[in-house]
Amino acid sequence: MAHVIDIDDPADPRLDDFRDLNSSDRRPDLPDGKGLVIAEGVLVAQRLLASRFDPISLLGVDRRLGELAEDLDGVDVPFYRTTADVMAEVVGFHLNRGVLAAAHRPPELDLDGVLAGARTVAVLEGVNDHENIGSMFRNAAGLGVDAVLFGGACADPLYRRAVRVSMGHVLRVPFARVPDWPHGLQLLRDKGFQLISLTPNPSAMTLAEAMTGDKVALLLGAEGPGLSEYTMRKTDVRARIPMAPGTDSLNVATAAAMAFYERVRTGG
Amino acid sequence: MAHVIDIDDPADPRLDDFRDLNSSDRRPDLPDGKGLVIAEGVLVAQRLLASRFDPISLLGVDRRLGELAEDLDGVDVPFYRTTADVMAEVVGFHLNRGVLAAAHRPPELDLDGVLAGARTVAVLEGVNDHENIGSMFRNAAGLGVDAVLFGGACADPLYRRAVRVSMGHVLRVPFARVPDWPHGLQLLRDKGFQLISLTPNPSAMTLAEAMTGDKVALLLGAEGPGLSEYTMRKTDVRARIPMAPGTDSLNVATAAAMAFYERVRTGG
Repeated sequence: MAHVIDIDDPADPRLDDFRDLNSSDRRPDLPDGKGLVIAEGVLVAQRLLASRFDPISLLGVDRRLGELAEDLDGVDVPFYRTTADVMAEVVGFHLNRGVLAAAHRPPELDLDGVLAGARTVAVLEGVNDHENIGSMFRNAAGLGVDAVLFGGACADPLYRRAVRVSMGHVLRVPFARVPDWPHGLQLLRDKGFQLISLTPNPSAMTLAEAMTGDKVALLLGAEGPGLSEYTMRKTDVRARIPMAPGTDSLNVATAAAMAFYERVRTGG
Repeated sequence: MAHVIDIDDPADPRLDDFRDLNSSDRRPDLPDGKGLVIAEGVLVAQRLLASRFDPISLLGVDRRLGELAEDLDGVDVPFYRTTADVMAEVVGFHLNRGVLAAAHRPPELDLDGVLAGARTVAVLEGVNDHENIGSMFRNAAGLGVDAVLFGGACADPLYRRAVRVSMGHVLRVPFARVPDWPHGLQLLRDKGFQLISLTPNPSAMTLAEAMTGDKVALLLGAEGPGLSEYTMRKTDVRARIPMAPGTDSLNVATAAAMAFYERVRTGG
């Protein structure tokens, strides 16, 4: 069981990992960020405690401590117990989830390891919105996608908002970086993945027609620009979601969800 | 062309329709709300100007006036031209889209009229999140869903945030209320719609198996509780998105998008 430590002074330095989250934790991936992963709420904290991420400490109200009792069994970290008001003062805003967990950012997973046994992966290029990243991990988990790979210029999946929107699935669904983007895609081809570029281009095949591989990598670009032409040329086929004429492209997380759905539907 | 009126005093009463949007426009559907529909940005303003919604006035910077010139041709309303700073002071926050349009809330559309010619409709129960409502309209437009119907207890689709997230599609995709919910579903059955309840229940048929109607109504409930059992009993079939075991339900707008996709895929 975690050691429960009661704290009633919001200035207590033991709470510094949770201080001013809106400012200090904005970009944990940058040199001036703290590099910590923050889980908000019971469900996400549970997922963190069951993940490869090493918890440092938790901060929460008594009721949440009770709800996490089983998950904290055998976990040797402090649980700083306090009131909702003290939490709000430490964190810098009112947090209605009542509990936070902080964890170290672990070393990145190795691409080969992540791909071992994987049959469906999403590969992102330029997806720079944390909510979209979070949504994609949630949908990947829900629809059995084995891993998420990052090509060029994506937002940090461990940013607090991405963790929250993913419902903690960024802590569970493995992810890795594709080296030497986009040339590194050859590593996936060598392992037998069919490389499918998602595009709104109406002259592309439909997703249902294009997705024929036993192992499939679904490439998705940012909303708006989409995948770069240079990257699409490195893939095997371009595929589109069938859309109504004269409408905008779909949100990238929504397009990803449909591609994941199509994969599940056809037994992927 | 709209009449261009230069304004440099943020207190000018002609700008009252755009004042303090975060507070006064929070719930335009409630008696203390203003009942106005607010479009933000060039794209959504264009959609508003091309819609059944009657514009009252626009507020924006000179550059946006230029971008909207064609859309404002023949539109007999004032365009209040000002600076970004004055706009921010009026609206109450910094608005990086540079233009707003206000419109009257028109009378609700008649259900019979909305259903005339429709082959695919979404029917919502208890969807009380404005972003989800907005996303559903965007996805409905993108995937050729003909109308959105509201059963019990849904959020206002004309709330500013829903308008924005929908990319203005709430102003284009027709919507109407189903009377006497859920008994009014009989009106859809009488018109030949197959009524399909979306559920995460793993014992339900898959969506691909269940969706057999020439005309289809897809019923969606709020994330979390889902559709009420009472409502599901009024429908023809229960269908699920095939999901990975042990994961949460999907976001309701994402589930809707997959259902819309399945409908398009099978030629609906």
